[in-house]
Order: sequence, then C-alpha cells, then structure tokens
Amino acid sequence: MTTGVRRRMGVEERRRQLIGVALDLFSHRPPDAVSIDEIAAAAGISRPLVYHYFPGKLGLYEAALQRAADDLVERFTEPHQGPLGARLLRVMNRFLEFADSHGAGFSALLRGGPTVGTATTHVLIDSVRQAGYEQILSHLEVEQPPMRLELVIRSWISLAESTALIWLADRGIPRGELARQLVHDFAALSAVSAAYDEEVAGVLRRVLADEPGDGPFGELVTRLAALLPATAAADSA
Amino acid sequence: MTTGVRRRMGVEERRRQLIGVALDLFSHRPPDAVSIDEIAAAAGISRPLVYHYFPGKLGLYEAALQRAADDLVERFTEPHQGPLGARLLRVMNRFLEFADSHGAGFSALLRGGPTVGTATTHVLIDSVRQAGYEQILSHLEVEQPPMRLELVIRSWISLAESTALIWLADRGIPRGELARQLVHDFAALSAVSAAYDEEVAGVLRRVLADEPGDGPFGELVTRLAALLPATAAADSA
Repeated sequence: MTTGVRRRMGVEERRRQLIGVALDLFSHRPPDAVSIDEIAAAAGISRPLVYHYFPGKLGLYEAALQRAADDLVERFTEPHQGPLGARLLRVMNRFLEFADSHGAGFSALLRGGPTVGTATTHVLIDSVRQAGYEQILSHLEVEQPPMRLELVIRSWISLAESTALIWLADRGIPRGELARQLVHDFAALSAVSAAYDEEVAGVLRRVLADEPGDGPFGELVTRLAALLPATAAADSA
Repeated sequence: MTTGVRRRMGVEERRRQLIGVALDLFSHRPPDAVSIDEIAAAAGISRPLVYHYFPGKLGLYEAALQRAADDLVERFTEPHQGPLGARLLRVMNRFLEFADSHGAGFSALLRGGPTVGTATTHVLIDSVRQAGYEQILSHLEVEQPPMRLELVIRSWISLAESTALIWLADRGIPRGELARQLVHDFAALSAVSAAYDEEVAGVLRRVLADEPGDGPFGELVTRLAALLPATAAADSA
C-alpha cells in the first residue's frame, strides 16, 4: 500500500483467484450452502464482478471441481520404482489427505445431491476414477488386463471412495492407518480374484516377488497369519 | 370380450399397472430415453390419462424406483439360520438377479445422470443401502457395531454395487460365480479389518466357528491356501 493504488489483476489471474477462493469455500461447507455473495466477499470483489468472470455459481463450481480433480490426479502420480505396496501406500496417503482437506465438498459431491451432481460433474468424477485405474495398471505393468483384474481394480477404487466418505463423517481412525488398511484391502481383494483366475494369480505372484517382508503387503500376511490359528481351530471344530 | 365392454380399472389398480409398465421400460433402456408416449402405448391408454394418474415422467419414475427398491430390500431378507456364508451367498445371488433383470435402469440410476439422479432418488438409494447394512448386522448378531465393522460392511456394500455395475457392461462372468466372489470379498475385507481390531476379530471368529469346511468361507480358505505356496516362495526369495 505504498501508493494507495491497488494493482489490477488480469482476466486469467482473476479467474484463477476466484476459482481458488471458491474451491476453498466449497471444500469446507456443502457446496449448496455457499452463495455467490460469500465468494465475492472472500475474493474482495463485488458480486457483479464475479458474474463478469463466471456465468454463475454452477460454472464457478465446475471450474473449482476441475481444479480439485487435476490436483487429485496429480497425487496419483508416483515414480515406477521400488516395491508396489509402498508406492500404493504413498498414493493412498495423498488421496486421504486430499479427502481430508476438501471434506465437505468431497462428501457432498460423491453423495450426489440436487445441485452438485450434473452431467459435467459426473464426467469429471469418472475421468478421475479412470486416471486412478490407468495409474494402477501402469504400475502393475499390465497393458491388456484380464476381465477379473479390471473388476478388482475398479471395484476397489469404489471401495476406497466410500471408505473415505464414511471416514470423513467422524475421522475416527488415524488417517495413516486407514491408508494402510486400503492397501491391505487391495491385496486381499486381488488375492480373492487370483483364486478364481490364473492370469490374475500370475500378476499377483510377480508383484509379491518384489515385496519386502516388512512392506504393507508383507505386513498383511503377518497380520492375517496371526488371525489364522484361531480361525483354523474354529474351522476344524 | 363377452360383452364388448372393457372392464374399467380402479384408480389404485391403474396406478399399479402403470408403475409396472414403466418399471419394465425403465429397466431395459436408460430411463432418460423412455418417453411418456411409450409408457402410455405399453399400458394401452392415452397420454393424457397417464398424466391423470401421475404428474409427469419424474413422478412415475420415482414410483417405479420405489417399487424396485421394495423388491430389492425384500431380496435381502433371509432366515436367521444355517451358516452365515451360505446365507450371504443366497442374498448375493438374488441381488445379482435383480441387477440382471433391471440392467439398464440399475446402471443409469447408480451412475447418476441429468434426470435420473434427484434428491428423492438419492434418499431412496440410501435407504436400500441402509436396509442392506442393517440386515448384515442382524445376521452377525451385532447391535452396536465397532467403528471398523461398520466401515467394512458399508464399504463392501459399495464394492458390491460397483461390481454389479461393471459386470452389467458385458456380463462376462457367470452370475453365480460372481455372487460367490462377492461373498469371498466380504470375508477377505473382514479379515483385513479383523487384523486391525480385536472386536472385529471376535465377530469373525464367532462367525467362522459355524462355517462348514465346504461352505463359501471354507472354500475361500482352500483357494487362498492353494495360492500361498507360490507367494510364500516369492516372499522368501
């Protein structure tokens, strides 16, 4: 404030600022409850000026969602090196961080609702799911997945979404522990699928060959083995 | 046609007939693609008469959806006797039969879309999920579920939904086999959860004590054990 003259933002800069302000508001309260007046106030501009940059609340909401989707897809990216369980664990930690920081908006969006679910938002959500699916395939080094492998990956992605949604209601489990459990869920579901399909079993064996005993997959085997004596005893009773 | 006079239907009877006709149409093609004219033609009445019974296509769609939801919830009901794995397998067979017979509508509804997803339909779908959740709790004989048990049941319900959705795209896996795999998925996810939580482990041990070696849970252990030598060998490599 050396001269008392506020620097005017360029159009793209102003749009980016508005999207950021809107995303922050939409992330912390149900998007239906956020008004254009609030967005204008938070951005320090007038309501008509908001409409100058965006045709309406829905357009701004979709732009904010696009930014959030880009952010999430970026979090899926992970170098193709090191044991697979550790890679997936890092991604799940970043995914839950994302869900945590956009809690209210994340929940409202995925639960659907009168205004938050439009054809555009559905396409956007599906594109994020597809990006997650393709990332996993690339890490498994599979180009033409057998049908059951596709099923296990896609249905696990859906499980991860609903797990995050349920968790957001009270955040009753430490985030890092939940990330680890999601990795274990993936391993367990893959193992079930492998029990039905020799091709999936082949992929699983290849992956497990690179897993250290103290990685998340190794840990799962240890945890399940600890359960086993009791269940085996029950089984033979 | 003995007298040439067609018997006139009562109001409730006509409404029930229209709902049945509409449900059949909405089940076999994306609901957005079904017109009131087609519903009228299929019911053998005029378009204005359809509007006499229902305010519009949305009202008729919601009524058809309510009937489908009632049907599905009824399929969840299972006597509280015999091994739990076999009970769940019967329910999953009926669930996949339902998805199979309402394919197009089931997919459109759960994928969401411009007209099929409204506040009313979301509430209805959630009530079906809740009914499924409560059925499982009652079969597990648990009244106050520990947090992780609630999480595993609800997230598995979501997994079952998306598994059915993906399967409907090409029905590439025999239905009965998919039902069995969903039961195995439930067992595997419970086992992961039990590895984190002594209370869940207690429930799992109690359930497994009643399982026969040749039931779906017993079969899972056999299938996983068959995988194990290879993965164990890989693990120690």
